[in-house]
Amino acid sequence: MEDVLSDVLPQSSIAPQRLHQAMRYVVLGGGKRIRPLLAFAAGEVVGAGPQCVDAAAAAVELIHAYSLVHDDLPCMDDDSLRRGKPTCHHEYDEATALLVGDSLQTLAFQVLADRPLADAPAVQLEMMKILAVAAGSRGMAGGQAIDGESVGKTLSLPELEFMHIHKTGALIRASVQLGALCGKGLENSEMEHLLHYAKCIGLAFQVVDDVLDAESNTATLGKTAGKDAEANKPTYVSILGANAARAFAADLHRDALQSLEVFGARAERLRQIADFIVKRQF
Amino acid sequence: MEDVLSDVLPQSSIAPQRLHQAMRYVVLGGGKRIRPLLAFAAGEVVGAGPQCVDAAAAAVELIHAYSLVHDDLPCMDDDSLRRGKPTCHHEYDEATALLVGDSLQTLAFQVLADRPLADAPAVQLEMMKILAVAAGSRGMAGGQAIDGESVGKTLSLPELEFMHIHKTGALIRASVQLGALCGKGLENSEMEHLLHYAKCIGLAFQVVDDVLDAESNTATLGKTAGKDAEANKPTYVSILGANAARAFAADLHRDALQSLEVFGARAERLRQIADFIVKRQF
Repeated sequence: MEDVLSDVLPQSSIAPQRLHQAMRYVVLGGGKRIRPLLAFAAGEVVGAGPQCVDAAAAAVELIHAYSLVHDDLPCMDDDSLRRGKPTCHHEYDEATALLVGDSLQTLAFQVLADRPLADAPAVQLEMMKILAVAAGSRGMAGGQAIDGESVGKTLSLPELEFMHIHKTGALIRASVQLGALCGKGLENSEMEHLLHYAKCIGLAFQVVDDVLDAESNTATLGKTAGKDAEANKPTYVSILGANAARAFAADLHRDALQSLEVFGARAERLRQIADFIVKRQF
Repeated sequence: MEDVLSDVLPQSSIAPQRLHQAMRYVVLGGGKRIRPLLAFAAGEVVGAGPQCVDAAAAAVELIHAYSLVHDDLPCMDDDSLRRGKPTCHHEYDEATALLVGDSLQTLAFQVLADRPLADAPAVQLEMMKILAVAAGSRGMAGGQAIDGESVGKTLSLPELEFMHIHKTGALIRASVQLGALCGKGLENSEMEHLLHYAKCIGLAFQVVDDVLDAESNTATLGKTAGKDAEANKPTYVSILGANAARAFAADLHRDALQSLEVFGARAERLRQIADFIVKRQF
């Protein structure tokens, strides 16, 4: 994945150098790469071609990276630390960080359009549509907007879930879906199982994030700990309490594994990712 | 164009309402729509299908609208007036403006991927690639970065041209190219003529913009006049002087019309746009 991302990012020697340097700074050398892992793992279920799944994985990670850069800006979360390094607007400046995010989003779509990937160009177009819907105002960016509006409010559990299904769930779902579209076509019912898996681990990821944010320290996380409580943001921990939040993550984990049963050994990697998501410490 | 844009934008009643309201605020009811006009006019040269050219025109305008919203932000040009209305972060807030820009960019790619448009899905993928390259770090966003770095510097004429070919030229070129891909295939040499036309009017547009910025007032322009001189930005007027800048625009106009000669009457709309670009007062 690191090689693929390095390949698709413009070299720092190409003008505008500072912008390209900053794009490489935020994307390379850090991050859990959960979304690419999901694309690769879903690709294994369908015997995906390596070139297609590389592009799918890079595209979802570029969208994720763009969202982090913009989310860290002063007008959003105003954060100074990300993946253990100064955030982009701290290392460079705000204008550069804005353009880095913008350019990474564009690059995600460029990577998917760049060359023939799937068996048919129509499938490739479908992949682009899925990515756009997942990233846009009715997906990830919309989730960010809802998140911003919820600061200082008391959310119900369904409202919190609605926010996360958009903010992080949509792109996690798209990662699985894009990987799965890189191979021979799945039956509709099989795709439904995969998408249910994606929904469960997407939520589990967020629940665990909230637990870690509440209980970990900044050095372990590589980003500022305790931010949510400080910003008075509703979280699974603030609504359910830490114990019930952990139990909820365990339920989601079980549910996720159950929806993989139809795939047998082909879904082993997807199982491992589900395990990692609930057991991770950062 | 207004109807198409209104159709592709999410309704304000759909959650997150405020974000969707703000997206509609910045896109609808204003703007010269030069880029859509170019897509439609290039489409006329090739007998383009209406659905395809509608989508192409909407996509380039959405990219343009996103770039304006981000360009107006405090960390960029910090502008308060656009198309005669308060800029997005003044009417809403900075976080919303950031997400509006992000979401409009995504929507541009979604519009192009949404349904079968061109004769072949492969052509549609080519259109998406062209749009991505034109919008990204080696196109429009890269031009913004170069623009930001050039504040307070003395640029040579070739350096200024390099900036504008990226900042505005790339998307204007893509507008023509996307429109032209919506119809029966052009010969390579014909496409070259169209792209030369696009390069000339793209530069002419910028030269005229610089003249208007220097000589017009805010009410006529619908955006803050005299910004460039105040920000100590290099312009065609600051490098060449107003008279030579006007003469340069006239040269580019002539050059643009010449490259349309091979197309005869089919290029009449493209000629009218070239005329409009050099003769406009706003």
